[in-house]
Amino acid sequence: MERQDCIFCKIAAGQIPSIKIFENEYVLAFLDIGPISDGHTLVIPKRHYERLDQTEPKVMAEIAKVLPALSAAVSRAMNAEGYNVLCNNGSVAGQVVEHVHFHIIPRHPDDGVFNRWPSYQYPEDKAGQIGEKIKQNISL
Amino acid sequence: MERQDCIFCKIAAGQIPSIKIFENEYVLAFLDIGPISDGHTLVIPKRHYERLDQTEPKVMAEIAKVLPALSAAVSRAMNAEGYNVLCNNGSVAGQVVEHVHFHIIPRHPDDGVFNRWPSYQYPEDKAGQIGEKIKQNISL
Repeated sequence: MERQDCIFCKIAAGQIPSIKIFENEYVLAFLDIGPISDGHTLVIPKRHYERLDQTEPKVMAEIAKVLPALSAAVSRAMNAEGYNVLCNNGSVAGQVVEHVHFHIIPRHPDDGVFNRWPSYQYPEDKAGQIGEKIKQNISL
Repeated sequence: MERQDCIFCKIAAGQIPSIKIFENEYVLAFLDIGPISDGHTLVIPKRHYERLDQTEPKVMAEIAKVLPALSAAVSRAMNAEGYNVLCNNGSVAGQVVEHVHFHIIPRHPDDGVFNRWPSYQYPEDKAGQIGEKIKQNISL
């Protein structure tokens, strides 16, 4: 099911050109045209879902089947020492195209991509309370 | 299979305490003790793999089954407008514990987490060459 105004649906349908890396019935991988590292690849379900938590199990299973091998291929091809796999959900989280996508971002020493990690400690008891709240919200 | 010096293997085995969010035969989710956002959760396979591209298909399938619902739960519990799902592979990519893990990071307006996205354009022809190189490296 496509959404008419979605650029990734159009790419999946071949209506907008892309540099395709991999394609099967459910999944498409193609180069991000605005990379943050050479070889920056996007992996999408062909079907339209806005966010990860809206995907259907069958589709997530298909993405999971190929994501490790595609990550390895991107990393090897770019001679990268490592890579990030990143799925931004919601504009507040940096999602620009509202069609769920996994970024594979090859990484090299001192490349300056994602070097911020503003971690902190929970005050006493807070972590336990948060843990309870999350558990109460799980629907599986 | 555990690795003796691995802190996440020890957490999975219950030898180091954690605030557990979810657990089944294959997968464990628990709060990151050094969060970058309240509710920051880690989802790991119980079995030890260093990187995403080393995971076995069965284990990735099990992670894929629960990741959407756990993301939704974290996001709902924290009243977050969005969230990042991030898997860092290799120290160059910010991986600190060498046991593959997916961060679920709830996001709020102006929280200042991950606001850098240094995108650029490929010079002419380069994207095509990179695409070919990645395709040649896929083993599926």
